[in-house]
Amino acid sequence: MDIENLKVDLQERLTEGRYEHTLRVTDTALELAEAFHESVENTKIAALFHDYCKYDPLEEMQKTIETNSKLPDLLLSFHHELWHGPVASIRIEEKYGIANQEIKDAIFFHTTGRAKMTKLDKIIFLADYIEPGRSFPGVDEVRDTAKTDLTKACYQAARNTVRFLMEKNRTVYPDSFHAYNDLNQEVFGGIDK
Amino acid sequence: MDIENLKVDLQERLTEGRYEHTLRVTDTALELAEAFHESVENTKIAALFHDYCKYDPLEEMQKTIETNSKLPDLLLSFHHELWHGPVASIRIEEKYGIANQEIKDAIFFHTTGRAKMTKLDKIIFLADYIEPGRSFPGVDEVRDTAKTDLTKACYQAARNTVRFLMEKNRTVYPDSFHAYNDLNQEVFGGIDK
Repeated sequence: MDIENLKVDLQERLTEGRYEHTLRVTDTALELAEAFHESVENTKIAALFHDYCKYDPLEEMQKTIETNSKLPDLLLSFHHELWHGPVASIRIEEKYGIANQEIKDAIFFHTTGRAKMTKLDKIIFLADYIEPGRSFPGVDEVRDTAKTDLTKACYQAARNTVRFLMEKNRTVYPDSFHAYNDLNQEVFGGIDK
Repeated sequence: MDIENLKVDLQERLTEGRYEHTLRVTDTALELAEAFHESVENTKIAALFHDYCKYDPLEEMQKTIETNSKLPDLLLSFHHELWHGPVASIRIEEKYGIANQEIKDAIFFHTTGRAKMTKLDKIIFLADYIEPGRSFPGVDEVRDTAKTDLTKACYQAARNTVRFLMEKNRTVYPDSFHAYNDLNQEVFGGIDK
């Protein structure tokens, strides 16, 4: 993977602000990879590509979702903010030949999370949430947790995200909710009966 | 259906407080049925029976869930508070021959709601939430909405319930979440893109 060429491609596809966000997510993800023992190479690729399709035309993303059997049609019933991760997981294989399922999944699910997140899923999801440019309510608590507990930090991020959406009377994509429930069980160890 | 006999049965099965709650839910549900044009007979039966199994022994309810193909095993992974509605929907058919699917569904889903709630589902779910003995935060707003808009009142109740559970770091049964999303779309009319 020629990272320098990729960076040129990213700069052409993204706004300056989004490109800088991507670099900060990559730095944060690499710190998490070191702390929690994940492949540096996979982490770097997933982080650099996570917003690769952020500014693709909506019609183009919609067509990709409709015609690609690996992407759930359900996405189209939810906010288009959720489309760019799944679409990127397809585009990077077409354009860069990236077929590594762990990398593709981490990109696919970086906005929502999912049940049974892999370590790489968690690192990309969390890095996107806590990179130093982020300033939403609760992010400092998540940053603090991320120093010692990857799963608990992801739980806090997933919980904050779902609660924020509900506060705003927005629908919640099922994977976000499954991430919340599943991470809750990982953190608190089963159901309190 | 001999309602007086049923009331004796209920008094034997429930605590005094729970029996009184059942009568208040029934009164509230009948008011909603009148306001929103639902069958009085179906409403009365569903309301009277909604907590019929509230105090059944957990082991007995667990066995019923495990051995009855109409009840989702998934229930066993969530708090036992969720078991009594689905179990009652089976028991009332066994004991009273109540086979009306609308009544059974309204009892089944009275705690969680579900996607695509029927009018009777909504009436029982809402009456259980707003009956005059209830005093949790937000209930007065829901009572007020219920005067004019059954679906919006259910949405507010579902939203309050899910938010309360997440506030307490509790898992959320998928049907509760599906009810939230689906009622949100009924109230706000589709996705804001």
